[in-house]
Amino acid sequence: MPRVSQDHLAARRRQIVDGARTCFARFGYEGATVRRLEEATGLSRGAIFHHFKDKESLFLALAEDDATRMADVVAEQGLVQVMRDLLADPDRSRGHAPGVDWLGTRLEVSRRLRTDAEFRERWAQRSQQLTTATRARLQWQRDSGNLRDDVSVDVLTSYLELVLEGLVSHLAMGLPSGHLEAVLDVVEESVRRYRAR
Amino acid sequence: MPRVSQDHLAARRRQIVDGARTCFARFGYEGATVRRLEEATGLSRGAIFHHFKDKESLFLALAEDDATRMADVVAEQGLVQVMRDLLADPDRSRGHAPGVDWLGTRLEVSRRLRTDAEFRERWAQRSQQLTTATRARLQWQRDSGNLRDDVSVDVLTSYLELVLEGLVSHLAMGLPSGHLEAVLDVVEESVRRYRAR
Repeated sequence: MPRVSQDHLAARRRQIVDGARTCFARFGYEGATVRRLEEATGLSRGAIFHHFKDKESLFLALAEDDATRMADVVAEQGLVQVMRDLLADPDRSRGHAPGVDWLGTRLEVSRRLRTDAEFRERWAQRSQQLTTATRARLQWQRDSGNLRDDVSVDVLTSYLELVLEGLVSHLAMGLPSGHLEAVLDVVEESVRRYRAR
Repeated sequence: MPRVSQDHLAARRRQIVDGARTCFARFGYEGATVRRLEEATGLSRGAIFHHFKDKESLFLALAEDDATRMADVVAEQGLVQVMRDLLADPDRSRGHAPGVDWLGTRLEVSRRLRTDAEFRERWAQRSQQLTTATRARLQWQRDSGNLRDDVSVDVLTSYLELVLEGLVSHLAMGLPSGHLEAVLDVVEESVRRYRAR
């Protein structure tokens, strides 16, 4: 395939995924009708489903896209930084601004995981990369001597992922974020080798 | 009102709340139709709505009921114990067994908080008691010298509540609970005065 077509294909795919992200975040999975997906992406249903087999494939593609971006931040800065970014996002509370889209996707994933066993299986393969990135980052910190060494890296990975789940849920419920920065300090410190006191 | 009638009233109310809990946990708020509430409680709609103004009032009553029971455990044993109980519940994974009902209610609360501003306000008054019980318990531990004293009781309260949110979300998604007992050990220790090492 000539280079220009490949670029065009990738750009079109990006256009669809970005539009769909806003649409899913705003209307939820069921609420994101084909008509709304057309509006959000600026493309016809024919064009959309030329690139993605069906709505679920499109949804999984964007969820995977988000997971990849998160994994990149985790690799560089750790999972706590992902949580801090989430907390600091000034658009978060505005409802459907770009900043909230990741949260919306994530919530929709949570909801579907609860209700759809087949989706759970398809998702499991894709969500693995965030766990892998978190574990690798923690292992690197342990090797550098910064991580506590009385608890396994696997347990600390699960711990950070559990806090992330809580944070997503908390923010999505629109609960006040008053103490959360200080809470994340506690979380960060609790995986470190020494408490700062 | 004669004593016997009061007892009867309380028993009937309990019968409705307990039946409704199973029903909401199983079918969700919208799915818990009046017909299903009749089946679950073994009472007619007339009898049910003689005791509760409407479905929302019934739902809030049972959510409040759960919150009260949780607050009692928190007062005695702390919020981490509530989480350990949740984790240890052998019925949890069986879907709709009695043990899962609290989780179901809690999830339904989460979902409605996200989507219903009026509900959020009504709920805020009721959920306060769990926060209050958690804070009181932590304050008592601080006074006993067991709690870390470099972080405020309010922040530690928020921290524990955030972990609870994460746990509820995690379990509800049917994700593996492999490391979670060890994770709760990390959580418990991170609010203590000293790390056990």
